Amino acid sequence: MASRQLLVAPPEALRKPLCTPHRLLLGPGPSNLPPRVLAAGGLQMIGHMHEEMYQVMDEIKQGIQYAFQTRNALTLAVSGSGHCALETALFNLLEPGDAFLVGANGIWGQRAAEVGERIGARVHPMIKDPGSHYTLQEVEECLAQHKPVLLFLTHGESSTGVLQPLDGFGELCHRYKCLLLVDSVASLGGAPIYMDQQGIDVLYSGSQKALNAPPGTSLISFSDKAKSKIYARKTKPFSFYMDVQLLANIWGCDGKPRMYHHTTPVIGIFALRESLALLVEQGLEKSWQRHREVAQHLYRRLQELGLQLFVKDPALRLPTVTTVIVPASYRWRDIVSYVMHHFGIEITGGLGPSADKVLRIGLLGCNATRENVDRLATALREALQHCAQSQL
Amino acid sequence: MASRQLLVAPPEALRKPLCTPHRLLLGPGPSNLPPRVLAAGGLQMIGHMHEEMYQVMDEIKQGIQYAFQTRNALTLAVSGSGHCALETALFNLLEPGDAFLVGANGIWGQRAAEVGERIGARVHPMIKDPGSHYTLQEVEECLAQHKPVLLFLTHGESSTGVLQPLDGFGELCHRYKCLLLVDSVASLGGAPIYMDQQGIDVLYSGSQKALNAPPGTSLISFSDKAKSKIYARKTKPFSFYMDVQLLANIWGCDGKPRMYHHTTPVIGIFALRESLALLVEQGLEKSWQRHREVAQHLYRRLQELGLQLFVKDPALRLPTVTTVIVPASYRWRDIVSYVMHHFGIEITGGLGPSADKVLRIGLLGCNATRENVDRLATALREALQHCAQSQL
Ligand SMILES: Cc1ncc(COP(=O)(O)O)c(C=O)c1O
Ligand SMILES: Cc1ncc(COP(=O)(O)O)c(C=O)c1O
Repeated sequence: MASRQLLVAPPEALRKPLCTPHRLLLGPGPSNLPPRVLAAGGLQMIGHMHEEMYQVMDEIKQGIQYAFQTRNALTLAVSGSGHCALETALFNLLEPGDAFLVGANGIWGQRAAEVGERIGARVHPMIKDPGSHYTLQEVEECLAQHKPVLLFLTHGESSTGVLQPLDGFGELCHRYKCLLLVDSVASLGGAPIYMDQQGIDVLYSGSQKALNAPPGTSLISFSDKAKSKIYARKTKPFSFYMDVQLLANIWGCDGKPRMYHHTTPVIGIFALRESLALLVEQGLEKSWQRHREVAQHLYRRLQELGLQLFVKDPALRLPTVTTVIVPASYRWRDIVSYVMHHFGIEITGGLGPSADKVLRIGLLGCNATRENVDRLATALREALQHCAQSQL
Repeated sequence: MASRQLLVAPPEALRKPLCTPHRLLLGPGPSNLPPRVLAAGGLQMIGHMHEEMYQVMDEIKQGIQYAFQTRNALTLAVSGSGHCALETALFNLLEPGDAFLVGANGIWGQRAAEVGERIGARVHPMIKDPGSHYTLQEVEECLAQHKPVLLFLTHGESSTGVLQPLDGFGELCHRYKCLLLVDSVASLGGAPIYMDQQGIDVLYSGSQKALNAPPGTSLISFSDKAKSKIYARKTKPFSFYMDVQLLANIWGCDGKPRMYHHTTPVIGIFALRESLALLVEQGLEKSWQRHREVAQHLYRRLQELGLQLFVKDPALRLPTVTTVIVPASYRWRDIVSYVMHHFGIEITGGLGPSADKVLRIGLLGCNATRENVDRLATALREALQHCAQSQL
């Protein structure tokens, strides 16, 4: 061993200082961090199993319960992004062969179906066009036909800009002995959701959208019904990292002494705590109202520019992420690049089934201000002047 | 919807400011963050798919190649802790029914075996006492007997304090058409490892040990042989989040345009970049030497206190994490608490098979200094004076 030489030299690129640009993030997420969350990101480490850490984790649980409007004891943060929360839900709720009904009206349903397939569920996607939503009647027919154990719906369909109404779906599912799983990654804090009152069995969300925390942690909560299904599994979930029974222990949800499972992302958890504290400070209803009002302001400004919204029915528009039809004689990529390069503002194109069809504008948490809308409108006006394609 | 009321009140605990204690983290990890990593943690967000982010990711890949001493193109950071990297390795390398040989001489082999079981591999654990290591001969017998497709070994067995020698294992495995997977979470940067020269097919490590970055990202690299096995799979890995073919794309390892997969932990990635830059600045060999010298200093100070090392053979001692036999007439918990409460220093007890047997002391990256050893020795001396149990 002593005789070995280093054959791979130290890379020159890492001798230069890290230098990151200033960006106004008005895409569908991640969003910018407010000062208090930034400060938490710069804190020194403590141990993932220190008493003070458990206290912060307990506070986060309470913050999630508030944000989700739930009293579920089985409420915690997952050590990964929104996809990790989706997999945590599906790995624990589904066993191979279980029937899984999926609302697939955008990319997130496609992703849920993909994960369901991978773990051997019998997946029944209810495929609909991007921009559409699901009615109680449509879902009831599929529940009757496929007898699924789990239904997946996306509350804030950020690839299409649709806000899925949720009233009545919980009750409906329960009549058919099905659990209701809802993705609120893009909507939480920006549009009303009431986990307990709406009978949602599993709800998850991300840190990096309207909560304005860095990506890397996600929120998840399980109703008693969902918990019972998990604790009655015949097989262990494929993933140890995402095993809810083990996560329940480290998050102090099972009343037993906490044992080492994995090293949680301590600094990300500090930041998440601060983002939830900011939501508490503001109040959920005020936050919803602000997102709604700022979105209205955006719609007006877009209209002034002659741009059209992709979602026609105002009641179905997601306030946090707005989809705009790519105007005729423009390429979406030109507009996005122009706004980025001349104004340092991020907006994005479509994703999955909405690719090439739309521009997406996110007004998330602290970024949801009239000033930001006005800055973007100025940038878009200039982009529209410069990016028209005479040939198209 | 409009008529619904908030039933869950904003939690009072989140109205108080976040307040975290100052700790010297001399357990087996996580470790403290140096100023440059702290500064990165406090940076503002940019998009996970911005050009500048791809640049940082490319720099990280080069940093990992240097730290691992590999030229593997398939080298990237996983969006999760060390366990997530372990699962990423096993989910992608094993298919149901594959034979998997596991060095189980501490908790990490147990965990690898557990994950292997969950995904339906035929797991053959080579169970040995904590404190032991594996010889080429032992492993060869098991390779011949079980014909595994994959062997797992832990380089730095942080639950027992053992440094597993790695020379010859790669060649041996390849003679038996087996791939070699090595966990270097607790050893990377602190003890020599040469991925390519030692014929290691898959190597992973953590961010929060000798690299001194926050937990939440992990490093992983795959040899061409490992890559071929992954790309020739008959089944998709159970996890989408950890699917290496998809991760290879977002990390720019497959030469194709990068597509959205999940939102990477942007701030954690900034911090990881800085921690790798610090390793480059110092140089691997200097870092190894410093860890060795500081560990020697620790051994001397422990001896002065009458304490005994758990690993007798100096060549098998892990420089980053030292295991100390719990002295007769002491309870390990009393010593750990004393040092924490009177000195703000973390050390820990054993874990898994070493539970109740040892104290564990970590000297990781920037924490590996003679000054820290001396501070700890002072604290331990006082603890030993105060914690003796006459009854034991
Ligand atoms: C509605 C929705 N679900 C899930 C996700 C996936 O989250 P992540 O990218 O953090 O994995 C997103 C992210 O954009 C989202 O908007
Ligand atoms: C050798 C080794 N492997 C794996 C792990 C697991 O890493 P994590 O706790 O980040 O999941 C650790 C963490 O202590 C370790 O020391």
